[in-house]
Amino acid sequence: MNRFFIPKDWIDGESVSLKGETAHQIAHVLRLKPTDHILLLDNTGWEYEVEIQKVSGERVEGRAIKKAMSPGEPTLKITLFQALLKADKFEMVLQKGVELGVSAFVPFVSTRCVGKKPAENKMIRWRKIIQEAAEQSARGLLPTLQPVISFREACEVAAPPAILLWEEERSASLRRVLRNEPFRKAKSLSLLVGPEGGFPSEEVEYAESRGIAIASLGRRILRAETAGLAAVSAILYEKGELG
Amino acid sequence: MNRFFIPKDWIDGESVSLKGETAHQIAHVLRLKPTDHILLLDNTGWEYEVEIQKVSGERVEGRAIKKAMSPGEPTLKITLFQALLKADKFEMVLQKGVELGVSAFVPFVSTRCVGKKPAENKMIRWRKIIQEAAEQSARGLLPTLQPVISFREACEVAAPPAILLWEEERSASLRRVLRNEPFRKAKSLSLLVGPEGGFPSEEVEYAESRGIAIASLGRRILRAETAGLAAVSAILYEKGELG
Repeated sequence: MNRFFIPKDWIDGESVSLKGETAHQIAHVLRLKPTDHILLLDNTGWEYEVEIQKVSGERVEGRAIKKAMSPGEPTLKITLFQALLKADKFEMVLQKGVELGVSAFVPFVSTRCVGKKPAENKMIRWRKIIQEAAEQSARGLLPTLQPVISFREACEVAAPPAILLWEEERSASLRRVLRNEPFRKAKSLSLLVGPEGGFPSEEVEYAESRGIAIASLGRRILRAETAGLAAVSAILYEKGELG
Repeated sequence: MNRFFIPKDWIDGESVSLKGETAHQIAHVLRLKPTDHILLLDNTGWEYEVEIQKVSGERVEGRAIKKAMSPGEPTLKITLFQALLKADKFEMVLQKGVELGVSAFVPFVSTRCVGKKPAENKMIRWRKIIQEAAEQSARGLLPTLQPVISFREACEVAAPPAILLWEEERSASLRRVLRNEPFRKAKSLSLLVGPEGGFPSEEVEYAESRGIAIASLGRRILRAETAGLAAVSAILYEKGELG
């Protein structure tokens, strides 16, 4: 069944009224008809199964026939602080990160970043990638994309407990970090991942001085766009939220 | 340090003699000079640190100064049976799969495949992607790419224990499967991942009849190219081989 995030006030009791791009998509792209069913997400965690009743021009009307909490949301909220990457890599991290279960993305600029700071239209494009991935992968809440900040700001605003991935960290494995306090019982977690060139040791030391745990993903060298996705998979697996 | 897989017989005691594309890369692309160091991998698990002594035209000569077992190889050998995907997705699975630690790739054709069977030049391209990713990510053994087979053949040749990922499997999570026999102590494992349209239930039943375990990656719907990478991350994490 096709899924769409919509503004909460498009649903009034049983009665559903869709407009804008969502209605256009339903009426003219998917060409759905009265009696077809869709799933609507109000971005508070509820999902509504809706029977289409009327398709006219750029409006679609329907009737909510079932309402349930969306099953796709992980209970662990991961905020992925990702250094800017080349645009196609960054977009891959957004799309795959949403599928895997990231709750919020915070792009940041660090010393070795080669990816450029996105213009406003790029941010719009990135939010669209997030929304499409969230609809496709059955998320119940739309992951957010925050404005670009600096590495130091990222270290300040990263809600504890926080982990920075570093490929030169030989002592603490991600597994050891996750199985110790304060991560063992955490309901939310911040993850910081560097750019193509990695973090220089001064940045790692700064993060550590702000109480951020440093963790390694093992002995193989992962590309920047792979590291965050592998770590998110591992973290959600550890918490029983990925199979 | 730059890393290259080379034929074993290019190293004779201390003396190293490089030719072909490797020598071209060193001499004309990277423009390395005498006294520069490189790492050579003989694809038996050894890596050699080599000091370049002479660069002339399309030949490079050097001296091995250190020899050690390559640290990048996971002890768990994963063979990823991946249904053909659209070419760019399949290439992403190869590149990221090598980084994460897959030991062998077996492409297969199943009912809902939309990806086309690769021509011989595509297989050459894919082997090159694998080699570059293996060099970049510090693998000690070059992952193999097997010829394309059918889904039924994949079920026959998949060395046990084997797992097929199915998004409709609601009972057995990947975690539960991995923590039970025969997976708990396995030194190798086969993983079967479907195409964009997923596996129809008849294929899942056939796999099950061949002794393949069926496992779910949880409640979110992962794209075909994401599922295998998330599962490989989770499996290696479970075994303590990814952080």
